[in-house]
Amino acid sequence: MDEDLSDNRNECNMRSGSSSFCYMKGSSVFTSKETINNMEVKSDDLGLAQYKDLLPYSKSSDVTEVFLKDVFDIMLKYIFKSYDRKSKILDFHHPHQFLQSIEGFSLELTGEAESLHQILVDCSDTLKYGVKTGHPRFFNQLSSGLDIVSLAAEWITAAANTNMFTFEIAPVFVLMEGIVLQRMRQIIGWEKGDGIFSPGGTINNFYAVMLARQKILPDVKQSGMRNAPDLVMFQSKHAHYSNRRPAAVLGIGMKNCIDVKVDEVGRMLPEDLELKVLQAKVKNKVPFYVSATSGTTVLGAFDPIPEIAAICKKYNLWLHIDAAWGGGVLMSRKHRHFVDGIELADSVTWNPHKIMGIVLQCSALLVRHKGALEACNSMKANYLFQQDKHYDVSYDTGDKTMQCGRHVDVFKLWLAWRAKGDAGFEEHVDKCVELSKYLAQKIKLSPGFELAYAEPKYTNVCFWYYPPSIRNINDLKVRSEKLHKVAPAIKARMMTNGSLMVSYQPLDDKVNFFRNVISNPAVRKEDIDFLIKEIEKLGCDL
Amino acid sequence: MDEDLSDNRNECNMRSGSSSFCYMKGSSVFTSKETINNMEVKSDDLGLAQYKDLLPYSKSSDVTEVFLKDVFDIMLKYIFKSYDRKSKILDFHHPHQFLQSIEGFSLELTGEAESLHQILVDCSDTLKYGVKTGHPRFFNQLSSGLDIVSLAAEWITAAANTNMFTFEIAPVFVLMEGIVLQRMRQIIGWEKGDGIFSPGGTINNFYAVMLARQKILPDVKQSGMRNAPDLVMFQSKHAHYSNRRPAAVLGIGMKNCIDVKVDEVGRMLPEDLELKVLQAKVKNKVPFYVSATSGTTVLGAFDPIPEIAAICKKYNLWLHIDAAWGGGVLMSRKHRHFVDGIELADSVTWNPHKIMGIVLQCSALLVRHKGALEACNSMKANYLFQQDKHYDVSYDTGDKTMQCGRHVDVFKLWLAWRAKGDAGFEEHVDKCVELSKYLAQKIKLSPGFELAYAEPKYTNVCFWYYPPSIRNINDLKVRSEKLHKVAPAIKARMMTNGSLMVSYQPLDDKVNFFRNVISNPAVRKEDIDFLIKEIEKLGCDL
Repeated sequence: MDEDLSDNRNECNMRSGSSSFCYMKGSSVFTSKETINNMEVKSDDLGLAQYKDLLPYSKSSDVTEVFLKDVFDIMLKYIFKSYDRKSKILDFHHPHQFLQSIEGFSLELTGEAESLHQILVDCSDTLKYGVKTGHPRFFNQLSSGLDIVSLAAEWITAAANTNMFTFEIAPVFVLMEGIVLQRMRQIIGWEKGDGIFSPGGTINNFYAVMLARQKILPDVKQSGMRNAPDLVMFQSKHAHYSNRRPAAVLGIGMKNCIDVKVDEVGRMLPEDLELKVLQAKVKNKVPFYVSATSGTTVLGAFDPIPEIAAICKKYNLWLHIDAAWGGGVLMSRKHRHFVDGIELADSVTWNPHKIMGIVLQCSALLVRHKGALEACNSMKANYLFQQDKHYDVSYDTGDKTMQCGRHVDVFKLWLAWRAKGDAGFEEHVDKCVELSKYLAQKIKLSPGFELAYAEPKYTNVCFWYYPPSIRNINDLKVRSEKLHKVAPAIKARMMTNGSLMVSYQPLDDKVNFFRNVISNPAVRKEDIDFLIKEIEKLGCDL
Repeated sequence: MDEDLSDNRNECNMRSGSSSFCYMKGSSVFTSKETINNMEVKSDDLGLAQYKDLLPYSKSSDVTEVFLKDVFDIMLKYIFKSYDRKSKILDFHHPHQFLQSIEGFSLELTGEAESLHQILVDCSDTLKYGVKTGHPRFFNQLSSGLDIVSLAAEWITAAANTNMFTFEIAPVFVLMEGIVLQRMRQIIGWEKGDGIFSPGGTINNFYAVMLARQKILPDVKQSGMRNAPDLVMFQSKHAHYSNRRPAAVLGIGMKNCIDVKVDEVGRMLPEDLELKVLQAKVKNKVPFYVSATSGTTVLGAFDPIPEIAAICKKYNLWLHIDAAWGGGVLMSRKHRHFVDGIELADSVTWNPHKIMGIVLQCSALLVRHKGALEACNSMKANYLFQQDKHYDVSYDTGDKTMQCGRHVDVFKLWLAWRAKGDAGFEEHVDKCVELSKYLAQKIKLSPGFELAYAEPKYTNVCFWYYPPSIRNINDLKVRSEKLHKVAPAIKARMMTNGSLMVSYQPLDDKVNFFRNVISNPAVRKEDIDFLIKEIEKLGCDL
């Protein structure tokens, strides 16, 4: 199953540092011992060194260098493994097994200080027992792959260890954020506007509802929702759950969060939206917000934006597009038409950490209205956003967000964009869609497989696998009940085997089906072929 | 000003890889050329390589290895620089200068793909023009330092590139989070409870108000705030602004967010809290929530928890402790008494990325009530939290949070804790407090310096510097007006010089004063001595 990826870096140069012990510089922490994941730390590079031998506790940088180089070697090995089809995606263990410790890997915090050597072992074990989300056969999540450039950028970001709230302590990152957001707005089709990177699409969808509420209730920050009109918001029944959450949090109430029907491939039905808007109005409620989805989570459907936008215009509703998953098509001349009309939106969620492959997390909210975020979120804290600083304080972006400290999420996107150019993203999106079409074709041609929905247009491919034992059951109810248990059973075997990961779920009246997603640039046709064969292999005896 | 830190890694071994060009393996990207930051990329290691020569686009891992090694070298150099007192903290430029490009460093996104060599230059420049928050003379923020172990952990986290929502794709991290949160609760004094890591103290303070609201209004998710009672919440006037924000967001209204008076060193006055609770009650409002602060942002004050808890008990109010900054004293036997009574709280915000030195971001919410987070946040999305998975799905923590995808923030704390043990954190906190006492002493003894508040107990030291020109002004109003401009002027010079960074702000009736914070393990007495001398040097002619 596994390949030995170790290279010949075992020549060690003895070197005497200024620290209190001897160690070898530049040596690898790995031996060539062949193991499942080949990640054990074997060398004694660091002797008995403790954290106190690191900077800044020690005045010498020697141990720091050796330690970090060893960490680097562990990571490099992991990266190579991630891309290696012969390696397992995961080495599955149950929670109780981890909690008892596995092959000496204990998660316990004893309160005692461990040696740096043990810390390296911990790093290695942590990766060893994790899930290789960059593996070419990890199709489980909308985010997958392990983009080398954005990974490098995330490392640099960690080393910079700063915070996005002020230009003062993050001058480069704050300006990069402005530039990247501007570029994203231009791609959407807006000359001006606003935007922010936040910790995930859920937070961005939350911001969107806040912005809409702020527009219709400018006094809401001060006065709350107690005497507000009975606001109502809408999204398709297939929208991501984060589009409903703001109703629960913001004081609107889930009862005022209305699901709109979808068509047979999961697109919001504009006529049902208008019907529900009118139904709310006759109850003296106040419709104010619609979230349309570009790329639904399960089916990858794109709601028809122009028709929805027309309704929003007619009834003066804020139009948000949750393009967390589908936003990537904006980079593709071939597929951009999926989001035709996106420029009509008031706000857009777009997650470059999904199909654009940026390392987690990287999620943007784009807003058509300049100054909207600040109007909504500003708290004017004068210990942080002093107005008498010596630089142009309009670059202090912290007062635009709901957070105070904010992680630097822009650099990994900026750097990947520099490396790949527009064309690199375009090519990747096109390839993912093409490979998904290939999968859909394979499913149509493979006995026992069935597409759960009409041919997909994006990279979500939803399908059932029928083991031979249930193919000839005539009683549809019985067959359906049995089929419902097939995907979980195969998924359990996938994980135990470590050979493949594909997600599954039921939806509406359909029993559990697999949802395969392609967003990893490592995926090739051979992986799709493998997927079909592996599901068959794992499920044929069920 | 600057030291050449380059080592002798310029022997390059020519190696022919399987890729289409030649490069040197293991060579440093640096020459020994002496420059301000010595960070220019000079080598041609990567020739004309593009991102397509990286994995997974290329089948060979050679370029990936060279590229990442070069990135690693850039980071290593930066880390050494960060700890080097002879290097600048920052190389200040104004926003418009950056936007025009500085010495060839352009932030522009042209849409064209750049070579990997250029990407390395970008990495180097990004660090070069940033702020070294780990520098021993960066006293500007509550978070400072550059902890090597947690930095390594953040790199590993980036390589793991996964998401906290399910055990399925983050088994190790999800379990680690449970273990770390349990340890933190034990330290607070709770046997059971709940908790979560979230993107910053602001989000955690937000969660706390949501939890309290959920308790008093169990139907709020469904019904909203429209027919809810007129909820009122309280915090000291010196509380961080994130304690007020939930009132603006959750539909409570800022008018129902009441500031409580503080004493002469910034501690909440319990008698004023009780007065304001009663004032609200007589207006038929419903007090439900108090946030007490352990370690205020500016003064580092600790509100008296037992007295506040008694009032909360009497009036049935949720007690939250915002110990984002002060929570670190829980690790110190000597200073833990600052937070005596913390176990009486219903919830606690505690940011290990502050005085515990963990790389940004690492912020925990601890809750005394088991299941509270799920009751508040659960949305039961069945595409993600399938109940028919083959493992114990109670470990899928995603339904406890307001987010969907969530960054892995626990590993850097877990790993640092393993490396340092309880004692390592304790020693660090004690040292920061001790150094701050040393600074306060120095201020008392240095002509022209004055403490703005009575002797500090934590690491916030607030003080004025009076340039000779204003020392003898008798008109207090005039003197005060002039003094107000001193800190911003000196701060501008600090930044232009790159020699020191200390924050400043006005507070209540006090004009701009410096707030010095020590949380960086690199700080020594010599840096405190430098701080005093440098402020004098930069400000004496004002």
